[in-house]
Formats: sequence, structure tokens, C-alpha cells
Amino acid sequence: MTQDTHISLAHGNGGYFMRELIETIFAQQFANSNLDIERDAAMLSWPYGELVITTDGFTVQPLEFPGGNIGSLAVHGTVNDLAVSGAIPCYFTLNVFVEEGFEIALLKRLMASLAEAAQKCQVAIVAGDTKVLPRGQVSGLYLATTGVGYRTNTSPLNVRQIKAGDVIVVSGSVGDHGIAVMLAREQFGLRGSLRSDAASVLPLTQALLPYGDRVRVMRDPTRGGVATVLHDYVRATGLTLRIRQSELPINGEVQVVCDMLGYDPLYLACEGRVVAVVAPDIATAVLETWRALPEGSHAALIGTVCEQHPPRVILETELGGERLLEELEDDPLPRIC
Amino acid sequence: MTQDTHISLAHGNGGYFMRELIETIFAQQFANSNLDIERDAAMLSWPYGELVITTDGFTVQPLEFPGGNIGSLAVHGTVNDLAVSGAIPCYFTLNVFVEEGFEIALLKRLMASLAEAAQKCQVAIVAGDTKVLPRGQVSGLYLATTGVGYRTNTSPLNVRQIKAGDVIVVSGSVGDHGIAVMLAREQFGLRGSLRSDAASVLPLTQALLPYGDRVRVMRDPTRGGVATVLHDYVRATGLTLRIRQSELPINGEVQVVCDMLGYDPLYLACEGRVVAVVAPDIATAVLETWRALPEGSHAALIGTVCEQHPPRVILETELGGERLLEELEDDPLPRIC
Repeated sequence: MTQDTHISLAHGNGGYFMRELIETIFAQQFANSNLDIERDAAMLSWPYGELVITTDGFTVQPLEFPGGNIGSLAVHGTVNDLAVSGAIPCYFTLNVFVEEGFEIALLKRLMASLAEAAQKCQVAIVAGDTKVLPRGQVSGLYLATTGVGYRTNTSPLNVRQIKAGDVIVVSGSVGDHGIAVMLAREQFGLRGSLRSDAASVLPLTQALLPYGDRVRVMRDPTRGGVATVLHDYVRATGLTLRIRQSELPINGEVQVVCDMLGYDPLYLACEGRVVAVVAPDIATAVLETWRALPEGSHAALIGTVCEQHPPRVILETELGGERLLEELEDDPLPRIC
Repeated sequence: MTQDTHISLAHGNGGYFMRELIETIFAQQFANSNLDIERDAAMLSWPYGELVITTDGFTVQPLEFPGGNIGSLAVHGTVNDLAVSGAIPCYFTLNVFVEEGFEIALLKRLMASLAEAAQKCQVAIVAGDTKVLPRGQVSGLYLATTGVGYRTNTSPLNVRQIKAGDVIVVSGSVGDHGIAVMLAREQFGLRGSLRSDAASVLPLTQALLPYGDRVRVMRDPTRGGVATVLHDYVRATGLTLRIRQSELPINGEVQVVCDMLGYDPLYLACEGRVVAVVAPDIATAVLETWRALPEGSHAALIGTVCEQHPPRVILETELGGERLLEELEDDPLPRIC
């Protein structure tokens, strides 16, 4: 940022440059005791009780893809940020930025999908705003949703609770959303039957709340993928994470596309997965709890936390070697948002 | 809408087409007991107490104009929707949609202005999201803010409380924001010294709460201007509003530009005004209360509610005639959002 004078696409990819942008502009300007850029949602004191609030913008292209569309995504993305914060989503607001000339039947279909997802997640859209932009000033349709929820538990769910020896659990296969959206673009002459993992993770997160503070933290890996969540954990704790490549649940089709195009599934976006860090004594129980749910049937214990210095994310490869998982910097990935 | 197949700019102007779009797509799809499209903010039951929540998108061009910029506007617009609902704004979320190539120094300046406005309004930005869009897919910078507040009073502030005999009060000159933004574009070879009225109306709204339910309803006239707010009142009540042109506070510069270009100030956006409907016995007191505040020094009693049929908005002209104020349909106005 010290050198950058203009916004680049790398400022939006979820990695290093984006974090720098957020830290040097937004977090600095808006500093207040309730703003914590390490969290997916803000925990707010309220005259009575506690509010949890989060917001997300949605710019996916194409607007419809196997397994979802920008409407359902606008619900699941924000539901999930509340869910991994231990909250139950309750009320939503919706912002629509739509381009002059946009097909009204398509808008209706996308909003019907948004409404259906909201109903399934038991959230009510209670306020909204629409801006129509002149042709060429917006690429079709962008949405933003803000979600308000409440917490029924008192577990702190804070990245700073992570301890050496803790176990890293992922709730399902990684990178499906990123590759499904890419395939829907029919770029590179590729097509496929892969569906996005986009879905509410609320059943997964609520199932872990009875474990109390032995569930240290949960995050949903979206932009920047699982690797970016792991880097967030390393930065906040000063501990090293060791990930076993052989344990990573990766769909065959995702692996094939990644091999062809040189992508790493660990940096691809998911929209219906959770990465949790849990105490070692409950790791197997958490795995079984998740695997018993339809949303978590492919859950896996993918690694451990240790005291090794300097702190970093190490991938133990299937061939018995080791390599560093770097923080995402430039943008070698399919841009999907 | 029955004929329209694609979005037009008129779907975004705050008038008839926009209302139809909102009614036939959003309100219908998202129908729930907490969604009331006649209100500026939603009143939500909460396990303890009451939440008030609202959201707004900001797409003003140019991004900076005399009296404000998109940053300060993103605070004032949402603060004002909570304020006219009788709420005290508390927590904000922020969505940023920014174009690749956007100047970082300008982003910083706009966010500094947003932060300053938030601090003055005593709201905390507690969550945010940034999307960077490829060059050409967004026109510079769009923002959306969602605001959460609470109500300390129990006044219903509902348009359905309006009764024949009630008095319409406006808190200051109308149309300054619309014309200030238009002049900032230096279109039509016009320039001027006019400043936008963009500001928090919270002092104005809080000052009226002690009057209880004799203040029937308050609204801030933004897109579509004062005329659109008046039409909302007519539609909700089935009563007629008579507006006295001679009482309308209009800045000289606004009137000159309107006369030159054929605009009507009553359809121009304000960003720091309130249109209230109050019981006749408190009208003078409300006027004095507002005029005693710096934000309300040009407040005026501009008209009355009556039982005349069919229900409409009638302008009593300065020449002693009458003309109908139609609902805004097409887009003869400077587009400022």
C-alpha cells in the first residue's frame, strides 16, 4: 500500500493486499471498540442482550451457476458469517445495484431464489434499497446483505483461544464453489457437472456449540479459500499450522481442473464449508458430529497446531515432503467475486 | 411492470415505476410481517427490547460535491432513515464496491469523511465488506450502509395516523442537494456556490419526540423529493394534501437553476431535511422548535391535510391558482443517485 496509488484486482482477492487495504484504510479510519477485522461478525452490546451483525457484498459472474445463484448466495454468505460466530441469523437487509436494461424476469427469478434461501434459513428480509445504474456503470447486478443475529451460547469463539496441540477440522470438500463458478463461465473450453457447495452452515456450527470453549474458533473459507483462513489463524496466534495433504477432502473434478490450470484448491472459495479449530480431546467427536449431518458427510481432520517457529502454514505433501502455503498475494485464481 | 421486460432508469428514480418494481418483485418475494415498504426503517422485536434497522445504497456522481461526498452521504442517508423512524442510530455496517484503478488517496479521503460523519453522529462502523470490480464493471465507487438503532420513545410515527386537519411542516429549503450535485458536474455550462443540505436530521427528529403521537409521521425526502413523500402520504391515507407554493422554502439559486432547466424543486432530492405531519394544535410549536435549531432555521408550515376527493397532492400557486403535483413517473430530473 505504501507504494500503491491505485486499486488493483489483488486488493479484492482476500489475500495479503486486501488485508493491507482493510488495515490501512478502513480499520484505521473507522477504529472503535466494536470493530474487529479478525472476526466474521461484530458482537454488539445492546441495552438488553447481545447483537451479532455482519455484512457482505456479492458480485459473482455468471449470476447463475450449478448449485446456486447470486440470490441464494447473498443469503448463504451472510448467514454463514453469523453462523461461524455462534449466532442464529434473524433479520436481513438487502441492497440491490442493478443495471439499466437488466431483464426483469431474471431479476424476479434471482429474488425468488433469494427469498427461498431466506425462508429455509429462517431469516426475514426486513429492509432494502435499490439503485438503478445507467447502462455500463455496473455489470448487471450486485447485491449486498447485512444480517443481524443473536447468540444463545456464551462460548467466546475467538481466534486467540487457539492452543498448540489443537486440531483443524474442515466440514467438507474444498474449492467446489470456485471451480463450479469457473466452469459455469465455460472459459478455457471447460465444462463439467460440479455443483457449488453454496449452502447454510448453520446446522454445522450449531452442532458444535455444546462443546463450549473447546471449540476455539470457526470460520467459513470464502474469498482466498482455506489457505487464507489458516493464515489468519497463524497471524493472530503466532503458532504454526501443519496440514496433511492426504487428508484434504477434494472432489475429483476440482482436482482435475486445478491440475490442468495450475490452481491450488486450498486458495479457492467455498460457500458452504467451515474450518474449525478444536481441542484435541474432542476432535474425533466433532468429526463424528459433523459426519452425521448431510452438510458434513465429508468432514475431515486436516491438521494440527504446533509451536514451531517462525509461525507459518506448512503442507505435508502426499509424497512425504513439506512445502509452505504462502499467503495469497497476486491473483492466479479464477475471479469469482 | 406488466409491460416492462427490462429495467429502465425510471425504475430507480423514486417515483411510480420504482414503487411498482419494489411492490411486484421485492415486497412480494420477501413478504413477512416485519417488512413494511411504507417505512424508512424496520421495527424489529428482539428477545429483549426493540431494534430499528435500515439500509441504503449510494452511487452519487461526482463522488465529491459542495457540502459533502459519497462518504459523508453514506452516513447521513442511513442515519436519517433511522432518525425519522424515531430511533437513535447506533451501529453501522459498510459495503464498498470499488473499481480497479480507483485512486487510493481519494478512497482514503472519502473514508476519512465517512468516519468523521459517523463520529459526529455517534455511530460506530462495526462490520464491512469490500469488493474490487474489474475496470469498467463499476463506475468508480458505490457504497451501501446498514444502520441499527433503538427507540427510546413509544410514539408509533406511522403514516396511518395522519388525520384531516393535520399540518405539513418541512425543516428547511428543498432541492439543495439535487441542484448542488448537478452543479458539481458542471453540466450545461452551469456553476454555482450552492451547498448540498446533506446532514444528519437527528437533532430535528429527536426534538419532536416529546410531542408523542401528535407528531403523526416524519420522512426525509431523498430520491423523488418532497413530492414523492407527499404522494406516499396520500396513497397510505386516502386524504388530499394542499401545499401552498408561497410557503415553500426554496433557495434563490435552486429556483434560478430550476427555472432555466424546467425542473420542479419539489421533485429534487434533499439529504438533510424532514417532512413531518403534525396535529394542528402543535404546528406552531413544532415550527418554533425546529427554527430554534441550526438544522431547522428555515423550517416552514407548507400545507394541510384535508378530506377532498379524489385524494391527491394539490399545489396552491402563488398566483392564486391550483395545479396537481403528479407522481413522478419518467425521469426529467438530474440523476444524482
